[in-house]
Amino acid sequence: MTIPEVTTRRLSLYLRVLTDLQDAGVSTVSSSRIAERCDLNPAQVRKDLSRFGGFGTRGVGYKVPDLRAVIEGILGLDRGRRVIIVGAGNLGNALGDYPGFNRGGFDVVGLFDVLPDKIGQKTRGGRPIHAIDDLVDLIGDRGAAIGIVAVPATSAQEVVDRLVAAGVRAILNFAPSRPRVPEGISIRHVDLSVELESLSFFLSGRVRAG
Amino acid sequence: MTIPEVTTRRLSLYLRVLTDLQDAGVSTVSSSRIAERCDLNPAQVRKDLSRFGGFGTRGVGYKVPDLRAVIEGILGLDRGRRVIIVGAGNLGNALGDYPGFNRGGFDVVGLFDVLPDKIGQKTRGGRPIHAIDDLVDLIGDRGAAIGIVAVPATSAQEVVDRLVAAGVRAILNFAPSRPRVPEGISIRHVDLSVELESLSFFLSGRVRAG
Repeated sequence: MTIPEVTTRRLSLYLRVLTDLQDAGVSTVSSSRIAERCDLNPAQVRKDLSRFGGFGTRGVGYKVPDLRAVIEGILGLDRGRRVIIVGAGNLGNALGDYPGFNRGGFDVVGLFDVLPDKIGQKTRGGRPIHAIDDLVDLIGDRGAAIGIVAVPATSAQEVVDRLVAAGVRAILNFAPSRPRVPEGISIRHVDLSVELESLSFFLSGRVRAG
Repeated sequence: MTIPEVTTRRLSLYLRVLTDLQDAGVSTVSSSRIAERCDLNPAQVRKDLSRFGGFGTRGVGYKVPDLRAVIEGILGLDRGRRVIIVGAGNLGNALGDYPGFNRGGFDVVGLFDVLPDKIGQKTRGGRPIHAIDDLVDLIGDRGAAIGIVAVPATSAQEVVDRLVAAGVRAILNFAPSRPRVPEGISIRHVDLSVELESLSFFLSGRVRAG
């Protein structure tokens, strides 16, 4: 089953809604309620969920813990994904201790940097900072699946090349540049200014609030 | 003209492609080429752009600088948006110096914190860190339009309330919680772990790379 990226983003949204509901002690939920929480069309939600098997009951809806477990399974969050971060500046430190990067099967096992005064230190949350030259050895030992790039734009391609050479197959890039990867490797570029532009548009008075 | 949020995100994407093309010295571009760069259907791109007036020429395409200026105008990026950040920890410092938050009409005018050893300091990029108690005075003076929340989840609602009371109408929230805002105020929640979940799904072998 191949699924386009945009659907996986909706699955992540559904997972957030289900986690909130379960935390609030809610045991069943309708597709309409999920749709409302996600600002989506109920038909879209039903279509997405039916793709993975018809585990809802008409008139009753979905069992929250069951649906949550199914989506976690689909996203591969039940497997445990080791994450490493290259760049131990402000951004790398913030990401290393970011709660969402250390739950749901994810675990930041370490950061890497070139600066001698950072190597051997820890983030505030206790994650170790290693020398970048130890990347291959440590990734080999620990089997990191996801590499995060938190270095300046000028170093991003070199860091990506090193991650790929070390066996990392999925990369999340925060540098404001577009490093290339060979076929078979997935790279996602995070551009936080897209969010600011959306807000700017809201302020210009031509978009609905929300 | 009201436009849903998802369209503004596509406009931001188009703007990135056009900026790249202009930097590369390209003067005209077809909707198909924009679509290809954004991984979208060409009909979708034409529909989005035609909403704002038919400024493309059949068989020739769009003039890159003209289309770029039109989209910047639509997004309100030609107006200048003052941005403030509450929370001068690693994340706040990283965002304060983030290149995308200091171009395209955006300008981070200052950070705010409660910790005495941070107040009066500057970010590495030179942005001043003020006491949060000076928020109303400084926002009043400088007319900040967008407030960024970079504090722990437990303080997020209080910070949002203070921003709203100080006259900020658009908020970008990085705290892993969902603070509420009154009607007429726009808040956008950034959840970086959505990106990690997409990559996890790729690693599970059921999604197309890219």
